[in-house]
Amino acid sequence: MTDLNILGKQAKETAYQLSLMDTKVKNELLLHMADELEKNTDIILTENQKDLLQAKDNGITDTMLDRLRLTSDRIKEMAEGIRQVATLPDPIGEVEKMWKNEDGLMIGKQRVPLGVIGIIYESRPNVTTDAASLCFKTGNAVILRGGKEAFHSNKILVEVLQHALKQKNASPFAIQFVDDTSRETAQQLMKLNDYLDVLIPRGGANLIKTVLTTATVPVIETGTGNCHVYIDKDAQLKMATDIIVNAKCQRPSVCNAAETLLIHQDIAAEFLPVIEKALAEYEVELRADERAGAIFSRSIPATEIDWETEFNDYILAVKVVDSLEEAIQHINHYNTKHSESIVSDNYFATQQFLKQVDAAAVYANASTRFTDGFVFGFGAEIGISTQKLHARGPMGLAELTSTKYIVYGDGQYRK
Amino acid sequence: MTDLNILGKQAKETAYQLSLMDTKVKNELLLHMADELEKNTDIILTENQKDLLQAKDNGITDTMLDRLRLTSDRIKEMAEGIRQVATLPDPIGEVEKMWKNEDGLMIGKQRVPLGVIGIIYESRPNVTTDAASLCFKTGNAVILRGGKEAFHSNKILVEVLQHALKQKNASPFAIQFVDDTSRETAQQLMKLNDYLDVLIPRGGANLIKTVLTTATVPVIETGTGNCHVYIDKDAQLKMATDIIVNAKCQRPSVCNAAETLLIHQDIAAEFLPVIEKALAEYEVELRADERAGAIFSRSIPATEIDWETEFNDYILAVKVVDSLEEAIQHINHYNTKHSESIVSDNYFATQQFLKQVDAAAVYANASTRFTDGFVFGFGAEIGISTQKLHARGPMGLAELTSTKYIVYGDGQYRK
Repeated sequence: MTDLNILGKQAKETAYQLSLMDTKVKNELLLHMADELEKNTDIILTENQKDLLQAKDNGITDTMLDRLRLTSDRIKEMAEGIRQVATLPDPIGEVEKMWKNEDGLMIGKQRVPLGVIGIIYESRPNVTTDAASLCFKTGNAVILRGGKEAFHSNKILVEVLQHALKQKNASPFAIQFVDDTSRETAQQLMKLNDYLDVLIPRGGANLIKTVLTTATVPVIETGTGNCHVYIDKDAQLKMATDIIVNAKCQRPSVCNAAETLLIHQDIAAEFLPVIEKALAEYEVELRADERAGAIFSRSIPATEIDWETEFNDYILAVKVVDSLEEAIQHINHYNTKHSESIVSDNYFATQQFLKQVDAAAVYANASTRFTDGFVFGFGAEIGISTQKLHARGPMGLAELTSTKYIVYGDGQYRK
Repeated sequence: MTDLNILGKQAKETAYQLSLMDTKVKNELLLHMADELEKNTDIILTENQKDLLQAKDNGITDTMLDRLRLTSDRIKEMAEGIRQVATLPDPIGEVEKMWKNEDGLMIGKQRVPLGVIGIIYESRPNVTTDAASLCFKTGNAVILRGGKEAFHSNKILVEVLQHALKQKNASPFAIQFVDDTSRETAQQLMKLNDYLDVLIPRGGANLIKTVLTTATVPVIETGTGNCHVYIDKDAQLKMATDIIVNAKCQRPSVCNAAETLLIHQDIAAEFLPVIEKALAEYEVELRADERAGAIFSRSIPATEIDWETEFNDYILAVKVVDSLEEAIQHINHYNTKHSESIVSDNYFATQQFLKQVDAAAVYANASTRFTDGFVFGFGAEIGISTQKLHARGPMGLAELTSTKYIVYGDGQYRK
């Protein structure tokens, strides 16, 4: 079993050096890591092949296999991703605000790295280079613990990045990999309080749940999205249809895709047949409550489980509600506090929805699919937080930082 | 044993109502709570008497007894504290920034309450009204779990506040008290993930440590302060003496008091005798390393334990260092990341110290005693965070909030 205390100690020592590293140096190292990734395409593909063969032996689905597969184009994309991170402004060192207090002290709130970040994630190997580059840019040391499906791919990717660091006389401990996918090691990582400043799980609902109930280190909960679109009685038919089709079908496997459509009873009979037809192009399975089922030409009855499920698939639960209030109540009861949208021409209905719905992102007249660090303009995304502490919603570089107060005095002591 | 799930459920439901409550209504309720506290002075003093008698039976120290004691003046102060909170600006609803993204979406980052806050604290009953009023002002429901020494005092205080809420038809579940000081209940609170959004421990090092290693709910670590003052070779004697005397003696029991003095070897022989004399007025016990001990007229040898101890008393560890670098290294090794200060006329020495010392607040030429929400100008303080996630340093009202993105579209869907 890997001794995470050793990794932790190495990470902590390196984190201190990283916290003092100038932006220019960090950017040069990032660019070099990107170059080395491309240069080592062959060996990365060879290792990825091992994961693919094993996955096939385990009878993995084609979708999963595709998520796991690396190609030289995909490695190029990963390298480009790292280069993109190098171009982003460095939040570290920025003094958010500075003021003079009553004693004449100049007090500044300065951005500093968090320290050591742990990432527990599943399947997709591109998370490895994404997370590593974002943590590096923000002066944090990172300990990566990927899923067993992508073990060989993740391992070689980290080795290449570490090699690149060593070539430039930087500490390879800035980016470390847990060379062991056992449950015990994962549990140890979740309790590595002496070394980890934060642990970010990225993956499915089960992973998130395990981390939340096990970890004693600070966690940022990410990801699971049971998102809703509510079509109000004052909605426009075309806009409502466009938004729900987009929210459900543009990329159903992601966390900001919609899982449930709520629709006001006054317009259900007019709107639902049009929406059914539009969704039929994507062969969306409809799971409807009684009233919606009576309108649809084809649907199956929704169960209690359906209201709380993130399908991540071409499946949509549909419910007819009596009022805006019922829609809000349903959402606040079943949602995972991710992204929620109302479609309505009515000023007061949209204001009430934006105010009363509890979620990281609440939309009026737009698709839930926009909840994304890049779309929001952050230039990066380490995940989407669905908790309320530290960060909520899409997390960019700033969310990987902390602050310290720097105080300039001229001899003051407290009276 | 108290069933915390019931308290949690009540808190969560009430938190939603509180999140929508207008500032004016919250302020009126706070003022009414303050009035009711004063009006119920007699009954509060009667209950406090029970705690005092029990404390005497247990042979508690006079200092501790004083912290526990309520008087009509102290109750008046508590009420004034609540009135003060009512006058503070309400952070809830504030939109920190709003921008238009490439898709034409107007995206605003709005302050919302955290939800349900748990507070675990020791001894002083004024924490009860302080914490309750700050959480209430920020639209959060709070579950308070005080120490057994102040059980009767805390209980009656919460009952008075709840009574005040009920009189005005507001939910008493906004402020709840764990009517049970057992270890088991405390542990249950630390794992109440379904209901608690954050747990804030306020108390000594042992309490903090227990919470950190036990809790699975998000925690904000507060309080323990092993703070240092470093006197550089280019320091002014009077300024250095004023600052170390203030940092050590003005209020030694608090977390921002200094515990260790580090002094550059070049000025140790000149400065230490003057500092010894100044500290002698407060009968400060000096625990010195070999070089400092050779200069002092009276001191005892410092042990390894002394470097890591928060004395909270008139005791000061003293070490002579070869250089600024050694001072920084010592501080980063032994400190609790709270407050650190350098005294120096040298520009580069102060800049290096501010940059390289890892702590919530780092001072040049000022006493560590300034680390305080009121002194910093926040108008309130719920504690001083020594962790890096969510909040670092003194926490005011803003640190009891989260954010949500409110997004105004006009029919956008993702391409």
